[in-house]
Amino acid sequence: MHTPQFMPVGTQATVKGVPPRDLQEMGAEFVLSNTYHLYLRPGDGLVARRGGLHKFMCWDGPILTDSGGFQVFSLSEFRKIDDDGVTFKSHLDGSMHRFTPEKSIAVQENLGADVIMCFDECPPPNDREYNEISLRRTHAWALRCRQSHQRSDQALFGIVQGGIFRELRERSARFITDLDFPGYAVGGLAVGEHKVDMFNVLEWMDDALPKDKPRYLMGVGEPTDLIRGVARGIDMFDCVLPTRLARHGAAFTRDGRINMRNRKFEDDESPIDAECDCYTCRTFTRSYIRHLLAVGEMLGLYLMSLHNLRFLMNLMSHIRAALHERRFDEFARAWLERYERLKISGAIPGI
Amino acid sequence: MHTPQFMPVGTQATVKGVPPRDLQEMGAEFVLSNTYHLYLRPGDGLVARRGGLHKFMCWDGPILTDSGGFQVFSLSEFRKIDDDGVTFKSHLDGSMHRFTPEKSIAVQENLGADVIMCFDECPPPNDREYNEISLRRTHAWALRCRQSHQRSDQALFGIVQGGIFRELRERSARFITDLDFPGYAVGGLAVGEHKVDMFNVLEWMDDALPKDKPRYLMGVGEPTDLIRGVARGIDMFDCVLPTRLARHGAAFTRDGRINMRNRKFEDDESPIDAECDCYTCRTFTRSYIRHLLAVGEMLGLYLMSLHNLRFLMNLMSHIRAALHERRFDEFARAWLERYERLKISGAIPGI
Repeated sequence: MHTPQFMPVGTQATVKGVPPRDLQEMGAEFVLSNTYHLYLRPGDGLVARRGGLHKFMCWDGPILTDSGGFQVFSLSEFRKIDDDGVTFKSHLDGSMHRFTPEKSIAVQENLGADVIMCFDECPPPNDREYNEISLRRTHAWALRCRQSHQRSDQALFGIVQGGIFRELRERSARFITDLDFPGYAVGGLAVGEHKVDMFNVLEWMDDALPKDKPRYLMGVGEPTDLIRGVARGIDMFDCVLPTRLARHGAAFTRDGRINMRNRKFEDDESPIDAECDCYTCRTFTRSYIRHLLAVGEMLGLYLMSLHNLRFLMNLMSHIRAALHERRFDEFARAWLERYERLKISGAIPGI
Repeated sequence: MHTPQFMPVGTQATVKGVPPRDLQEMGAEFVLSNTYHLYLRPGDGLVARRGGLHKFMCWDGPILTDSGGFQVFSLSEFRKIDDDGVTFKSHLDGSMHRFTPEKSIAVQENLGADVIMCFDECPPPNDREYNEISLRRTHAWALRCRQSHQRSDQALFGIVQGGIFRELRERSARFITDLDFPGYAVGGLAVGEHKVDMFNVLEWMDDALPKDKPRYLMGVGEPTDLIRGVARGIDMFDCVLPTRLARHGAAFTRDGRINMRNRKFEDDESPIDAECDCYTCRTFTRSYIRHLLAVGEMLGLYLMSLHNLRFLMNLMSHIRAALHERRFDEFARAWLERYERLKISGAIPGI
């Protein structure tokens, strides 16, 4: 795998609307899928009977599954956390379920991804008192995940929590890295905290996490955040943003985000982004895309998704080249200045 | 163009959910688009400014537009027919519009398809009295369409009407063929009449229409109807059926239609149709497709649409080969017997 890497999200064993051959064409390498969703439907047992997620969704490349924790806390209608695990009500049919660290690992072993994640709690980032309590639980659960994990063909990553609080984050990094996982995620960010707090945490983690193992920032996909994340040592990202924005009609361009439903594109014969080489931009006009979105045609969502995903793939590829050629700071500043239409002063990671 | 040919329907300048490169891959040659829909959105003026439908939707192959008549009669909330034309209320926003034969041709000239259709009335097929009245109008309108049509790079097809009544159909065929169009459609069928009535009309038309010009049966796409239509001399078909069925979870297979939402496919590792060579069948299991449909994932509709369309493309290609090799009767009987799981006696066109 090339790093840094952005992973498209295939929540229900499919990157929404995008067939695997198109993911391959756009240069996607790593795909993420959601344990909570797959556990509920079609069930991890069914996926295991198919020979695992790769075979089930026909994706040859690496796959990462999250632990289900985030969705248990954000999606389920009712949840009761205790030190042993979480009891929750399915958002689909109200049925009751229980996830423990052991259960999450067992489900992820059934799903069979290449990288799996420790089951953790994702607490409100600004609540210091609750983060203290929650952190003890997350650490105990990390240990139990490590102990129950059996498949040697899967890498189990640890997750650092601790909200926006330096002491907690550093304590968490010490505890989790002591457990010696093959990779580390920074969890509990991009969930409503201030951007400046998120970048502070990433800077502390840049010092606290080992340099020789992959670092994964969960749930981040805004282009500017990818650049600023890489500037702070992050190797892996995932986010539903490119496909979700696509479904809402928003497209990434080198000059910032645009709303393709806007009437001003009605007679616009240029591609969404003149610098993009995706199938959509190589083939169709803004006028046509705008028509598809305006009349609610499925093809519009597909073409927009292809573009937004390829845009991030291209960005990551440019980032990798800049890192390789030791001109990342320069690249980052130029990229952000144009995308955000502002002058940036100061050195990276101040950007 | 190879005949006989099935034309996928791209109602709003897109075959629902299927990008042009996939249409090309599956062997689609001719695509149909709807004048009524495009006139309302994005407007034929906008399409003309884009250089016509081919450029707008990025389809290099031939395109046929209908006259808008069928949708005016079936979709609009309010319509008032007089001998000069039809006043109707848009099904989208209630705005009032008027189509005359001249207007329909002007709109179709703006859209710029290769084959365009005469503006006609599509009356209830079983109402003899009304069909008498309507036929006079349809004939007068055909003449006006012919007179107002100016673009020499478009072929204007005439449409035979007359419901299920032999005398009316034959009268209509005489009138319309006397106007000497480059092709003829059999209109007003597949709108609720008995199948046996439809095939009777096709047999009368097989004798009444010139052998050396294409004959187009509008709105028919059921595999068995394609075979029985070809047996009665039809060269062109169009229908929303393959993509509409796909969106409802129904798939064509060589052994008949199946409902891919059915729970019995949950653990089925075979492709939708083992004899199909489409991307879907080459790649994915029924189990996976069933999962996508069950959880409402867009990719399911796309993969099903690819399959159903390719299924009809393959069928037409087999039909062409059988005709070429003078073994169509044998082919048709074997195909129908397997698909319909029945024994067919008697010679074609009795099938």
